[in-house]
Order: sequence, then C-alpha cells, then structure tokens
Amino acid sequence: MKENRPISGFSKFSKTQKTDWLIQQLGLDASSADFLADFESKNVAAQKIIEDLSENHLSNFHFPFTVAPNFLVNGQYRVFPFVTEESSVVAALGKAAGFWAKRGGFHVENLGTEKKGQLHFSWKGNPDKLKLHFNELETQLRVDAAPITQKMEKRGGGILSIELKYLPGILPDYYQLDVAFETRDAMGANFINSCLEQFGKSLNHWLSSQADWDAEEREAEIIMAILSNYVPASKVRVWVECPVEKLSENDDPEAACRLAEKFVRAVHISRNDVSRAVTHNKGIFNGVDALALATGNDFRAIEAGGHAFAARNGKYAGLSEAKNENGIFTFSMELSLAVGVVGGVTALHPMARLAMQILENPSATELMQYLAVAGLASNWSAVRALVTTGIQQGHMKMHLSNILNTLNATDEQKAAARLYFEKREVSFSDVEQYLKHDTGR
Amino acid sequence: MKENRPISGFSKFSKTQKTDWLIQQLGLDASSADFLADFESKNVAAQKIIEDLSENHLSNFHFPFTVAPNFLVNGQYRVFPFVTEESSVVAALGKAAGFWAKRGGFHVENLGTEKKGQLHFSWKGNPDKLKLHFNELETQLRVDAAPITQKMEKRGGGILSIELKYLPGILPDYYQLDVAFETRDAMGANFINSCLEQFGKSLNHWLSSQADWDAEEREAEIIMAILSNYVPASKVRVWVECPVEKLSENDDPEAACRLAEKFVRAVHISRNDVSRAVTHNKGIFNGVDALALATGNDFRAIEAGGHAFAARNGKYAGLSEAKNENGIFTFSMELSLAVGVVGGVTALHPMARLAMQILENPSATELMQYLAVAGLASNWSAVRALVTTGIQQGHMKMHLSNILNTLNATDEQKAAARLYFEKREVSFSDVEQYLKHDTGR
Repeated sequence: MKENRPISGFSKFSKTQKTDWLIQQLGLDASSADFLADFESKNVAAQKIIEDLSENHLSNFHFPFTVAPNFLVNGQYRVFPFVTEESSVVAALGKAAGFWAKRGGFHVENLGTEKKGQLHFSWKGNPDKLKLHFNELETQLRVDAAPITQKMEKRGGGILSIELKYLPGILPDYYQLDVAFETRDAMGANFINSCLEQFGKSLNHWLSSQADWDAEEREAEIIMAILSNYVPASKVRVWVECPVEKLSENDDPEAACRLAEKFVRAVHISRNDVSRAVTHNKGIFNGVDALALATGNDFRAIEAGGHAFAARNGKYAGLSEAKNENGIFTFSMELSLAVGVVGGVTALHPMARLAMQILENPSATELMQYLAVAGLASNWSAVRALVTTGIQQGHMKMHLSNILNTLNATDEQKAAARLYFEKREVSFSDVEQYLKHDTGR
Repeated sequence: MKENRPISGFSKFSKTQKTDWLIQQLGLDASSADFLADFESKNVAAQKIIEDLSENHLSNFHFPFTVAPNFLVNGQYRVFPFVTEESSVVAALGKAAGFWAKRGGFHVENLGTEKKGQLHFSWKGNPDKLKLHFNELETQLRVDAAPITQKMEKRGGGILSIELKYLPGILPDYYQLDVAFETRDAMGANFINSCLEQFGKSLNHWLSSQADWDAEEREAEIIMAILSNYVPASKVRVWVECPVEKLSENDDPEAACRLAEKFVRAVHISRNDVSRAVTHNKGIFNGVDALALATGNDFRAIEAGGHAFAARNGKYAGLSEAKNENGIFTFSMELSLAVGVVGGVTALHPMARLAMQILENPSATELMQYLAVAGLASNWSAVRALVTTGIQQGHMKMHLSNILNTLNATDEQKAAARLYFEKREVSFSDVEQYLKHDTGR
C-alpha cells in the first residue's frame, strides 16, 4: 500500500536502495530492477559518465541514435547525427538533404556570435552620478574579472562591452550591467556567470571605496547575476535556392512552379498567423533539437532563445522565409542560437563525442551552421508535405510501425498490415481490429 | 580519404552496412562498431521498439533516467521520473519538492484542454456567400468526419467547434477553417490532422455540388491542413504559497522576508525584461522537458506552444508570477501545453511506460498538471539560487564532477579535488592543472 508521506535522504540512497524503495512505494513489479539494469551500457566507463551526469540516476533512457548523409553545406558533404523520438523526423531530414544536394545544397553564413548576461541590482543614489563615474567603475570591473577572463582572452574571447542601464520603469532604483561576451568554442555559461557574479562583488567593493559619497550611495543591492539565453546577436543565416522550374522531384516544370508558388504562400501564412507560426517553428526545431541532442547541447536554451527571437517584432512569427523572384526559388532562415563544442556534455558524453566525430569536429560557429541547416531541412520537408500530399501520409507510415510494435505483431503480420493500410486511414483501434480479425484469413 | 559526394540508398542499407560506410567515409576508428553496439539494450524486445522508432538507427543515445520523490501535488505525494542531460536539474527539482512538501505542496488546476487545428484554403468567391452558407457546410463537414470522430466521441472527445475565418490581410482570397478539438487522453495530432485533411476533401466536394454557383466558386484551393501547437485554451495553473516568514529553510523569519521580497522582484524583472525572461522560462522548461522526455512526450511541441504563450501579449515575458500579499507569499504560473498518455511514444517506449507507472498512470490532464509542477519547481530552485547564493555554486559542484570524469580522475583524486575546489572557482583548466600538479603532494 502506497504511503502518502515524504521520504528523506533519498538522494543519499544507493541505486539499489532507490530502486527497491520505488518498487515498494509504488507497488511495481519486482522485475523492474532487472528491467532497469537492462538499459545500462555495456561500456563500463561510459556508464559511469552517464550515471554521474545527474542526481538519482536509476538507469538510462534510450533514444534512437541515427545519422543522415548527403547534407551538402557550403559545398562540403556532411553526415549529420540525430537523436529524436519522433518517427519520420530523420526520414524527412534525409530526404531534404538528398533533394537539396542535387540543387546546390545548403548555404549558410554566421551573422555574429555575441552573447549577453546581466548583473541586476538596485542602487538608491542619483542615476547621473553613477553614469558620470561609469568609466571608472568599468575599468575596475575589467581588472577584477581579469583572472576569470585571462584564459578566454587567449582563445580570442572575453568581455566585449559593459553597458549601464537604468530601468526605473521596471522597478524603482533598478539597474543592469548589460554585458556582451565572446566565448569562442565554449557555450560559455559558466564563464559568463562567473564574470557576472564577480561584477556583483566588484561593484559593491568599488562603491564602498568612494569615500566622499553618502552612505546610501556606497552600497548596491545585488538582485541576481546571470547569463541570458536571448542571443539575437548570435545567429546564422541559412538558405537553399534553385530555379523555380527545378523544384519538382521528377523534372516536371509545371509541378515545380505549382509547388514553389504554394510553398511561398504557406511560409507567408506562418509569418502572419500565430497558430500556424508555432507549428511551423516546431517543425524547424524538430531538426535543430535532434542534432542538438546528438551533440549534447542544451536544447532548452536553444528553444527559449529561438522562440523569443521569433517574437522579437512584437508578434510571434514563423522563422523562415520563402520567395520566387526572377525565376529563382529561395527558402531561407535566420536562426538565433548559442552552442558550444568544448566543455559541457558535448565533451563528456561518449555518444555526443562520437556525434562530433561524425560531424568532423566542427567549431562552435560551424555547429551553429549545421543546426540551422537541420532546422531548414526539417522545415522544408514538413511544408513540402503539407502543401502536396498532406502530413498524414508520411506520418501514418511510421505511426503504423509503432502501433504494430505496441501490439507485438509478428514480422508476417507487419508486412500484411503495411499492405492493407497502404490506402486506408491508420488508427490504433483499426490496426488492433485488423490484427484480431483480418490476418491469417 | 573522405569523398565529397552524395551516397544513394543509404536508408536501405542494413545497420552493419550503415556503420561500415560511416567508419570508412569519416575515417572513424574501426572499434566504433563495437562501441555503438555497447549502447543497445540487453532487453531484446525493447531494443526492437527503439530501433523502429526512427529511420537510420545505428545505436541508442543514453540519457540518465532518474526520479525525485516528495512532489506533493494537490495533497498526494508523487514520485516524478526525469530525463535530462543537464547536471543539477534533478537535484534542484528534488530540493524544491522537499521544500514545498513542508509548506503545503503544489496546488494545480486545469483551465481547459481545447486544442486547435486549421484548414488553410483559398476561395475566389464573395466571402459573404460562403458565410451565408456556412451552417450547411459545417453540417456536411461533421457528417463526413463522423467515421474519424466516432471513436473519439465515445471517449468524450471530438470536434468542439468549426469557425470560418476570412483573412485577406494575410493573403488575397485566404480563409481558414479554425477548428477546436477535445482529444481526451490522446495528444491527438493524428486525429486532428485526419479530421482537417478530410475537411479539405469535404469542402471541395460540397462546393462542387453547389449546382447554381459559378464555376470559380465551386472550387477551393487547399493550401494545407494541420493541427496547431499553439494551445492557449489548453492550460493549467500551478502555485505554491506559504506565510512569508515560513520561506526560510532554517526557521529564520527575517531571512524569509528578505528572500520573499527579493524573489518577487526577480520574478517581476523576468516579466518585464526579455533578456531575463528567456532564461527564466528556460529554467521552467528544464523541469517541464525532463518530465516530458521521461514520459515520451514531444518536447518540441510543448516548447513551441509554451514560448509563444509567453509572447501572447506582444512582448515575450516570464511565465511565472510571485507576490507577497497579506503576509502570504505566492508563486504561480499558467502554463499552456497539450500532452497525451495514450498512443505515441508514451505508450510504446518501454522506459516511458515505466515512467508512467512511476507517476501512477495519470490521465492527460493529470500529466499536464505534473509537467506544470515540474516547471514551477525548477523555476523556484533557479530563482531562489539566483537571489541568494548565486547560480554558480550549485552548478559548479556538478560541473566539477563532470570535469573530473572527463579527465578520468580516480575516486581518490575526485575526493581531494572536491575538497580543494569547495571555496575556489571551478574551470576546466584549473581542474586539469590541479590534477597534474597538486594531487599526491
């Protein structure tokens, strides 16, 4: 019987104790312990690393680790590694890669890599006084942060600028030090946060040393110091283009023009209708996140920054654009994101390391490019399907596989079911019904 | 030597052929094939399911599968399963659960479960004519969709409403059928898309049967039919509350009041400053996504809908709110999201199924609640850390573990390093330096 009370010290239990408690508390099958063990890696060193990634590790959750070749990016063929639970995403990505490889591939350029963070604080003096002395303060901040920034500067990064912002519209006496950083191949979260926390200490040290200032002026209240995942100045532009009449898969110029024209309208709708924009962008992130997961990058950071970027003009809108101009079809996107390739899970997780090898060990800016390529490729396949056959046809093929597996169909039943449902609507109950009654007739 | 050319038929290769090609094409170590095999599950049936989830499966990518107990939700203690690669997220979630369990726990209520989808089409007739006949059309749409909706209706779901929208501001002659659905315990994507694609066929069938209409009026061009992941009418409200003076961990009313006051200001900033809002919400989704991943739900859909919801008032803002009123501290959030518990990866992935058992097999609305609880819990821990010790202290502890693992430190070295870095800044190079020079002195 489940007890409705808390448990203390759980995180200090051994893995076996945790599993035993779970089984008893929730009345799980006793075999659950063996079941969990079946998902640990046979690679002992790798298993240790995965276990140490998180508190309260019980086992490993498996996602398919896949690749898709034929991503022609700025003239070079790349193989992209993907991790996603969503059926049809990798198939769609692979199809887009192959399609565009025959049409010049993906073009992509970096538009910046600047990241930001803020020290948020309250100060009760006259704002003009702080502004007047800001150069002095900035010098001190940079001096105090030098031990932290030294190594980053050697790698070509560091603090780019420090701006003092007085924002009484948000809170009385509220200020920000709005700081821009370059973090090269690192995601830079720890570096940025360490700098900002140091700035908090330095600010108060500097204020307290202003001997002729009022007592009130000689102290600031630090509210918080934290990097921002909003990175509008860290972004890439990716695009594909080809003559409009080359857009069909089977050399049919008329079909190509129809597709181009409809595709452009569909993308235009996503830029002007929030209901469509959200799902349009979700399709972009299907590709972006699958590559982010494979390379151990933090997809929540990419999602948050990317969607806020999609809302930057006061209305949430689709991220990509499409046009037919002078006989040329162009499909493009600016994607704002920040990722790292040194440190973090990317350098640590054995499978993420292999993913990086598969990508031929890109720099952070190259990885930004590949993520944007994956996003545009995914978007291309989704919109193309939507304006031609509809989304359900492809989805249902994969969905049918999943349903057949859930229902433990034999290989023979699967083959028969695939034939039967080729031209029929797929639903869980229809497949169940089919397996019950229609096979073996 | 890598060949810079495409490969065809890759998806039809066997797994061994794919791996061999990859090793040869990229000059990977020949042991990579064995390495990949080490990450397949020992559970053969489970492995088959995971392989069939995606095209081009090579192996499995492992994330830590963890749990945190002590989530008191509407008076019931729950154990939450989490999947995340980010160190410190699960520790933070567990800490928040324990803290609030002593203060009444999490309160959560559903504010709706309506989902939407749109049929996008062009029609060249007079908009008033279509509006005039819309009731007739709607009846036909519902009749034609009956074979699809039948089963969903038996489960209490179905089509809630169909609205015709004329939107010439977006495109000339552009319309939407904006359709609201209830999908009960299913995420409903396939159901909604099937209904909408049927509506496209039915619309044209109905138009073509209007014998006395002009030829132009008797045909619509279907642009696309697709569900929306923007779900502002599918949402939950979650909150924690306690007397302000009870907010400290060690019964210190003064510290409690300071924390409450600073916490409220920090949350207020996140509602008014986009740079802060993005990272604030990212912290919310750290919790939401960790539970979404564990239960096999599509986190891209949740992210896209959630962030667009955060931008619904024309400015991207933090999702949570905090206040101190009449001596009571309240921290709350409205989260818009749609998830399913039947069908999809949730019902299919063996570990997601276990995660659902750990959650005691919730309904879709209950799972929505838990996801929101995880989001608020994660947000609480992050903001609390930010306004007290700073984020780096906790981060660095986990970060140190990761660095030590990357550097293959022995258990002895790890223990020594943890002591050494207790009051020092942690960076990769400092830890490397320390291991080289300072151990064993």
